[in-house]
Amino acid sequence: MEPRISIVTLGVRDLARAIAFYRDGLGLPAPHQPSPEVAFFRTRGTCLSLYPVDKLAEDVGDAHVAAAKQPQSGFRGIALAHNVRTRDEVDTVLAAAQKAGASIEKPAQETFWGGYSGYFADPEGYLWEVAYGAFDFNEDGSLKIPE
Amino acid sequence: MEPRISIVTLGVRDLARAIAFYRDGLGLPAPHQPSPEVAFFRTRGTCLSLYPVDKLAEDVGDAHVAAAKQPQSGFRGIALAHNVRTRDEVDTVLAAAQKAGASIEKPAQETFWGGYSGYFADPEGYLWEVAYGAFDFNEDGSLKIPE
Repeated sequence: MEPRISIVTLGVRDLARAIAFYRDGLGLPAPHQPSPEVAFFRTRGTCLSLYPVDKLAEDVGDAHVAAAKQPQSGFRGIALAHNVRTRDEVDTVLAAAQKAGASIEKPAQETFWGGYSGYFADPEGYLWEVAYGAFDFNEDGSLKIPE
Repeated sequence: MEPRISIVTLGVRDLARAIAFYRDGLGLPAPHQPSPEVAFFRTRGTCLSLYPVDKLAEDVGDAHVAAAKQPQSGFRGIALAHNVRTRDEVDTVLAAAQKAGASIEKPAQETFWGGYSGYFADPEGYLWEVAYGAFDFNEDGSLKIPE
């Protein structure tokens, strides 16, 4: 398997709100929408996709449709990270996210690994860490993970 | 915000098992481990990171630690996708995943969008779709999402 995540799909309850958050709030380019029910955001690398959560469950199968109807704990066990090139950008991105409707789950602060970061939850509750200082960047903007 | 997901972190209950699945089972290059408690897989684009789920919750905050202790429904609302260049590769990757301990949640089949795909759940339950035919590829291997 080629080492690559092609797409991260977030199952959302309110697609219009989620699109507005990522496009207008965070400033991502307008998404590709081959149908009104899905949005693919072009990113440098892994594509961010938004899709109704009930349809995502249906796409996987009946067991997942049933599970999706059960109460959710509010912690999905997964986090996305957006790494930035300056410490100030952590504050800027968190402020933009909050203004656009995100909740700040952890205000920006020094981290145990020597960096500076904070977390927001998008309007659907998906967690993003905005981080500075963990890794250098490759020329294409991806993280330089040491060998 | 630069349109980029830098890292996808999967919170795992058994880190050694998860590392073995992705490295030995799916063939990802050996991860970078700045400490024994975290693994960063170099990928072409977004980094895949594995981290103990309780520590991930702690990193976000107390409310998430509490939520992480509640029963989980088994459907997290999120899916990763690995797109491949041939139809046969869908079968190959799903078979490799199953052999390495994944469960096949949806056997490979024709899709409503005209492609061919299936889903597996990794040993921690995280969903991956292995898909062929949705998009062309850029030279760097990322997906060509139409403007």
